[in-house]
Amino acid sequence: MIGIFDSGVGGMTVAHAIEKALPEYRLVYFGDLARTPYGSKSPETIQKYSRQNIEFLIKMGAKLIVIACNSAASVATEHVRESFSLPIFDVIEPAVKRVMSLPICLKKKARIGVIGTRATINSGIYPKKIAEACEEARIFSQECPLLVPLVEEGWLQARETKMIIRRYLSPLKRKQVTALVLGCTHYPLLKNLIQPRIGKNVSIIDSSEELAANLRTYLLNNSEFAEGLEKGGEHTYFVSDVTDAAVRTAKRIFGRDLELIYHKGI
Amino acid sequence: MIGIFDSGVGGMTVAHAIEKALPEYRLVYFGDLARTPYGSKSPETIQKYSRQNIEFLIKMGAKLIVIACNSAASVATEHVRESFSLPIFDVIEPAVKRVMSLPICLKKKARIGVIGTRATINSGIYPKKIAEACEEARIFSQECPLLVPLVEEGWLQARETKMIIRRYLSPLKRKQVTALVLGCTHYPLLKNLIQPRIGKNVSIIDSSEELAANLRTYLLNNSEFAEGLEKGGEHTYFVSDVTDAAVRTAKRIFGRDLELIYHKGI
Repeated sequence: MIGIFDSGVGGMTVAHAIEKALPEYRLVYFGDLARTPYGSKSPETIQKYSRQNIEFLIKMGAKLIVIACNSAASVATEHVRESFSLPIFDVIEPAVKRVMSLPICLKKKARIGVIGTRATINSGIYPKKIAEACEEARIFSQECPLLVPLVEEGWLQARETKMIIRRYLSPLKRKQVTALVLGCTHYPLLKNLIQPRIGKNVSIIDSSEELAANLRTYLLNNSEFAEGLEKGGEHTYFVSDVTDAAVRTAKRIFGRDLELIYHKGI
Repeated sequence: MIGIFDSGVGGMTVAHAIEKALPEYRLVYFGDLARTPYGSKSPETIQKYSRQNIEFLIKMGAKLIVIACNSAASVATEHVRESFSLPIFDVIEPAVKRVMSLPICLKKKARIGVIGTRATINSGIYPKKIAEACEEARIFSQECPLLVPLVEEGWLQARETKMIIRRYLSPLKRKQVTALVLGCTHYPLLKNLIQPRIGKNVSIIDSSEELAANLRTYLLNNSEFAEGLEKGGEHTYFVSDVTDAAVRTAKRIFGRDLELIYHKGI
C-alpha cells in the first residue's frame, strides 16, 4: 500500500493526483485533523507528529510513504528518513524538479517566487533546494498564513480572499517573478485567484501531478519493490478528527463523497 | 495554585484579568499550542484535550481550574466536572451572568448577539444558558472562524479584518441586537473594530473581568478552601509548542515579555 499523510485535508489534492496516475495501487491516507494546522507550529512538534503519522501508516500496511504536506516536508523529511527504512517521498522535491525543467530556468534567468505557510517559508527549504539545482536562480519567498484558514472556510471566491492574496503576492509581483511555486497543498484550490494576480504569463507550479509522475517512474524502475505493493481494493481515508468542514473540503477535492474514517489513537 | 488552560494564547486575556483581580494567588497556565485551534475541532476531540490539560495542571499543583477557552467550555465543562472533583470555572457562565445584569435584560426586551468559533456556536451553549436565565430574551448567534487566525497574525487594524468583521456582524446588526457577547477569548483584542461596526450603543460583553470577579467572590465565600491555595511566588506559563507568533501575542496581551515554558508531554 502507498501511505500518504497530511496535517489535514489539503494533502488530498496529492492523493487525488496519485489515484489518477497510479490507479492500480491501493492507497491509505491519514489526515491529522485533530492537530491541524502544522504550518504555524515549531519544527520539533511537526517532526514528532510526522513520526507518529508514519508509524500509523506502516501499521495500516504502507510500504512507501508520501508526505503530502509542505510544512511537514520542509522540516521533517530528512528527519524521518533517518528513522524509517522504507522509501519516503515528499511534495518539495518534485516541485523543485518541475521548476528546474521550465525553459526560463534552463536559460538561468529564473526569478522564482515561493509561497507557503510560516513553517515552510521559515525552513528555507525551497531556496536551498532550488539553489542546489540552479545556483544562478533568484528566489523570493513569501509566507501566506491566512490562506489555509480561508480555503478551509471555503472562501474560494470571496472579495476578502482576493484582497489578502493581492497583499501577499504584491512583493513577488514587484520582483517580477517568472514562476511561482505553490508551496502548500491547499493553494491549488486558489489557483484561479492566484494566476490573474501574479500575472498570466507566470508559470504556476503545483507539485501534486509532478509527484505522482515521479512516483510512477520510481515504481517502474523498481519493479520488484512495486510487485510487493498491495494492488486493488478500496482506498482508505483516515482522519484523527471528523468535522463537517473537512467532509466538505474532501468532497470539493475529489468531486465525490468520501468516507472519512475516524482514527482516535493519535 | 489556580490552574488555567486555553487552546493557545487567547486565554491569556483571562489569566491577565485574574492576575489583576487576585494578585495574591499563584497561577499556572497551560496553552495547548501544539494542537491549537480547538474551535474547528469536534466535541469529542476537545473533551479529550480538556481532560489531558486538566490532568497536567493538577500535576503542576492546581487546586482549582479555569477553562479560559470558549470552545473548550462550550463542549467540555460539564464533561470534565463529572471526571474531576476540584472546582472548575469557565468563561461562559460569567458572560451569561453579565448579560443578565444589563438593564436591557432586566426589562426582558433583550436582543442578544453571540459570536464565537464554530465549536462554540454549534454547541448552542450560549442560547441555552441565556434562555435558562431569561426565557424571553432573543438570541442571535454567528460563527466567526476567521477571527482567531486574524488575531494570531496580529492583523488587528487591517482593512481585510475590518471587512471580515463587517461580513460576520451584518446579520446581527440587521437583528438590532442590544448586547453582543464576545464568545472567544481572542475577540477582546478586536474590540476596537467590533464596537463601531455593531453600533456604539451596543453593550459588548467580555467575560474575562466578570470571571475574575466571580472567582474572587468564590474564594471569599470559601475561605477554608482559599487558604489551601498556594500564594505568592512566580506565575508559570506552560505551552505545548513555542512559536514566535505566540511570544508576540503574549506580549501584546500582558504588555510585557512573558517566559513561555515548553511542556512537550502533550
